[in-house]
Amino acid sequence: MSCHHPWHPIISAQKATVRASFSLSLSNSLNNSPLVSQEIKTIDKLQPKPGPNSCPLTPIDFLERASVVYGDCPSIMYNDTIHTWSETHRRCLKLASSIVSLGIKKGDVVSVLAPNVPAMCELHFAVPMAGAILNTINLHLDTTAVLCNLLQHSESKLIFVDSQFASLVQEAISIFPSNLKPPTLVLIKDEYYGNCANDYYGYVDYEKMVENGDSGFKWVSPKSEWEPITLNYTSGTTSSPKGVLHSHRGAFLICLNLLLDWSVPRQPVFLWTLPMFHANGWSYTWSLAAMGGTNVCLRRVEAPSIYKAIERYNITHMCGAPVVLNMLTNHPCKKQLESPVHIMTAGAPPPAAVLGRAESLGFIVSHGYGLTETGGPVVTCAWKQEWDHLSLLEKAKLKARQGVKTVGFAGVDVVDADSGVAVTRDGLTTGEIVLRGGSLMLGYLKDPEGTSKCMRDGWFYTGDVGVMHPDGYLEVKDRSKDVIICGGENLSSVEVEAVLYSHPAVNEAAVVAQPNRYWGETPCAFVTLKKDSVEKLSEKKIREFCKAKLPLYMVPRMVVFKEELPKTSTGKIQKFLLREMAKDLRRS
Amino acid sequence: MSCHHPWHPIISAQKATVRASFSLSLSNSLNNSPLVSQEIKTIDKLQPKPGPNSCPLTPIDFLERASVVYGDCPSIMYNDTIHTWSETHRRCLKLASSIVSLGIKKGDVVSVLAPNVPAMCELHFAVPMAGAILNTINLHLDTTAVLCNLLQHSESKLIFVDSQFASLVQEAISIFPSNLKPPTLVLIKDEYYGNCANDYYGYVDYEKMVENGDSGFKWVSPKSEWEPITLNYTSGTTSSPKGVLHSHRGAFLICLNLLLDWSVPRQPVFLWTLPMFHANGWSYTWSLAAMGGTNVCLRRVEAPSIYKAIERYNITHMCGAPVVLNMLTNHPCKKQLESPVHIMTAGAPPPAAVLGRAESLGFIVSHGYGLTETGGPVVTCAWKQEWDHLSLLEKAKLKARQGVKTVGFAGVDVVDADSGVAVTRDGLTTGEIVLRGGSLMLGYLKDPEGTSKCMRDGWFYTGDVGVMHPDGYLEVKDRSKDVIICGGENLSSVEVEAVLYSHPAVNEAAVVAQPNRYWGETPCAFVTLKKDSVEKLSEKKIREFCKAKLPLYMVPRMVVFKEELPKTSTGKIQKFLLREMAKDLRRS
Repeated sequence: MSCHHPWHPIISAQKATVRASFSLSLSNSLNNSPLVSQEIKTIDKLQPKPGPNSCPLTPIDFLERASVVYGDCPSIMYNDTIHTWSETHRRCLKLASSIVSLGIKKGDVVSVLAPNVPAMCELHFAVPMAGAILNTINLHLDTTAVLCNLLQHSESKLIFVDSQFASLVQEAISIFPSNLKPPTLVLIKDEYYGNCANDYYGYVDYEKMVENGDSGFKWVSPKSEWEPITLNYTSGTTSSPKGVLHSHRGAFLICLNLLLDWSVPRQPVFLWTLPMFHANGWSYTWSLAAMGGTNVCLRRVEAPSIYKAIERYNITHMCGAPVVLNMLTNHPCKKQLESPVHIMTAGAPPPAAVLGRAESLGFIVSHGYGLTETGGPVVTCAWKQEWDHLSLLEKAKLKARQGVKTVGFAGVDVVDADSGVAVTRDGLTTGEIVLRGGSLMLGYLKDPEGTSKCMRDGWFYTGDVGVMHPDGYLEVKDRSKDVIICGGENLSSVEVEAVLYSHPAVNEAAVVAQPNRYWGETPCAFVTLKKDSVEKLSEKKIREFCKAKLPLYMVPRMVVFKEELPKTSTGKIQKFLLREMAKDLRRS
Repeated sequence: MSCHHPWHPIISAQKATVRASFSLSLSNSLNNSPLVSQEIKTIDKLQPKPGPNSCPLTPIDFLERASVVYGDCPSIMYNDTIHTWSETHRRCLKLASSIVSLGIKKGDVVSVLAPNVPAMCELHFAVPMAGAILNTINLHLDTTAVLCNLLQHSESKLIFVDSQFASLVQEAISIFPSNLKPPTLVLIKDEYYGNCANDYYGYVDYEKMVENGDSGFKWVSPKSEWEPITLNYTSGTTSSPKGVLHSHRGAFLICLNLLLDWSVPRQPVFLWTLPMFHANGWSYTWSLAAMGGTNVCLRRVEAPSIYKAIERYNITHMCGAPVVLNMLTNHPCKKQLESPVHIMTAGAPPPAAVLGRAESLGFIVSHGYGLTETGGPVVTCAWKQEWDHLSLLEKAKLKARQGVKTVGFAGVDVVDADSGVAVTRDGLTTGEIVLRGGSLMLGYLKDPEGTSKCMRDGWFYTGDVGVMHPDGYLEVKDRSKDVIICGGENLSSVEVEAVLYSHPAVNEAAVVAQPNRYWGETPCAFVTLKKDSVEKLSEKKIREFCKAKLPLYMVPRMVVFKEELPKTSTGKIQKFLLREMAKDLRRS
């Protein structure tokens, strides 16, 4: 366990060279040069030359096997559309050949802006099969300007757009600097979505690309497993989006790791409630090919359509942030499931109360922890048989802990952020969560400083605050910047929220720091109530409820009732917006 | 899919250097130099320096996690001995520290000669944790001289010996050349085995090493995932044993791959019917730690003790060559299982009749194909739902095919041995089976010629003959040298054997080439009969049975009845011995 060298593959043996190529691509980034291929050239040197035992690990290999073993089984279902794995294999080969025909070269970035429709599944294979890097874009970007910036930052050469988002992309392209060539636009039409955008011109048609492609295409396999496969810009909870580069190796490893960790059987029926643009759907975009499973696509993630899909398709597996669980368990259309559905939740610490409610409806909840930078959950709350006899509440509390490293991951720890020394494993001492393992990103695109700031001393520093319990299980306490420092005490907003969620009338809750002249900061709660709740809740009642369960300094000084809380596309509550509100609301 | 460079990591960028170091270690092998560590030094350069995303992949990581998640669950059961995973973790750390105390350095070879007893499980972790390379020795070596040669070839520094084999090892050591230092001997005593060898002196005691070890030992993790973890000499079906070196990376990958492929759930109860010395028990020695399973140990693999263990321990999983399946289904003590037992079989093509009989007793048979060089089965017969409705016999025939590459493996094909071009996928055209993927060996120790002979053009040439069916499933037809060439026709001994096995009175059958003046070669069958068989079988009857099912040229010209067929320790019938007999028996 001695990974203590302060570098990572992308900045490696040829450290100076790679740094140089990073800066180079930065300075050349407005120069239309194949930016990433320069990085690839250097990465290439880091891998033994191909031999029978060192073929690059890549999840793309799953697709051909699926066409052999599961050729006649459904790969994708969307309304009345059904594809089989042999069809999907053929369509992806054709699509990849058409992408190459459009002039896309190895290492070019190809973007996609689409909800969870069939094309999203296909492009996860077809784009890497053309040798390009897949850049799936967050559907909930704030403004056209942000999208325009992102397309320039990634130097995207081609963008696939679902017709719902076509005008947004056209606007972004219209404000491109005149000296830059914007990406070519491919339109994904959807007969199940009204506006088919026939009025756009100058675009390439997705289905035409499939039709005209060559099913005998020899796909462009990576020369090194360290070559990038995807570029994901992190969601908006942090100030400026960063471009996370993942390698073929990393994607392969997270697939095997998560399939094993979640004990996914052959041919699962998977409902796409997690956005595929978010960390590539925690790698299930590829993993379902490995198991011959079915991708059930869903344009809009809403409780009624989820319950309908579960029944119609006999869903066995799904993923989602805790906010999806909360929605499913609070919505008036909620119902007892006829057969159990496995749901993996991650992305934010789930309140124990929400976990408990979901399980009582028949969801089998697995809980994990990961970031865009890890490719998916890499720490999960491995269940112990000895916990089976506990009460529902005690079980939910244990399950709300993030857990232990997954089998294929190398390590997780909680350390003092300055010294890097592990904190006492007492479940109380907080520190920064650090991670290491094969599915960690290569680094941030064009950001060597940002990369080396979080990847150092053999660990990836997450910026999340946690404790390590005496039994070796990790519990996330907060994002570093979400910690509230009240009179010198570190106060976990997550713990206060857990209490608020346990109130029967509360739908959602978020607690943030409010500046206070005397205490420095005090907790301020934002709360939404359940629609069918009869109880009239006052600020006072909420505070009394908290007083009964928390030390006084943790009880929110202010409780604000809202109709809705601001969220990112992946369901994370945007605390930075709430902090602004709290600042303005501050009592004198 | 373009792995066409004629080299592999161990002979790589620094090709010349590595070849040099190989020859060097060869010439220095009688010089007591740390042979393998020189190779390691070069391998080191092939891997990116450690960073959070490039920690070496190693199965040793599974153990610590098992101690956290499954700390109180049984790891090893043997008669009345029960260990938990936290005990096993502690014992392995202590053992590793004691191995280092004995002077073992990184890259040294440490041998073990023991049946499937608890120490075998522990040493699969403890030896690599000391930085050494684990060399488990075949228990059925022909002579003391072979063992002595092998210990010299591997330059083994330490040998762990079960008391049953202590005198054998002492003899081998006694004939060591006087200028060489033989390995230090550690005795593994077993209270359940009679002879506790108290009369041996000068040995180290296994349990003392555990007792006196340091449980706080910081284990010696590999600097590169390409460092060797094991050295396995191939079983005696080929003329001279070869030392197969596997890397930490390869072992890690075969573990994840096989667990997924076999859909092994958490906490399986695994009966050790496959020798752990054979390809490290197809990696389950490590994989059981990954899933928190139980190793149920068994000194002797016999039908009555297997059926007894299945009942006593509620066995869920086991592995074995087809010969084990045959034994279990033919032995008078055979019985219907109370709950189904998953059994993975590989190592030789199983006759469809044997598969059918096993399934009817309640075994759920998975069938795969691999070699010591692949670390375990890497091609398996993935089952298709559409086959469910077929007759038992048709099912067994389909299942007797070796199948498709496993999810984590890169490729399998059947090629013309000279041109390397893939044969027609018609299920008829035979060719040499080639493989590539992450769990392929590093190479043969001190044998660069042997290594480059079978690892070339990006493939590993297995020396096995097979066909590829139109549906992409592989079927093994024979070992190259087992093919019978009769009047210019290639004749598969395996196909003739399949017919013989379908005869109700036949216990085992092997068909080999017999020299013939006119035809060149003709098939000669060696047959053993079931003990409880009432039918008196004559050579004529057998030939008539075959005539009804085979073209005339495939019907054995001679049928020889035997009490027993000669076998290797892993249950492979030793056809080279039968060929010798057939030659002597030849009719004029």
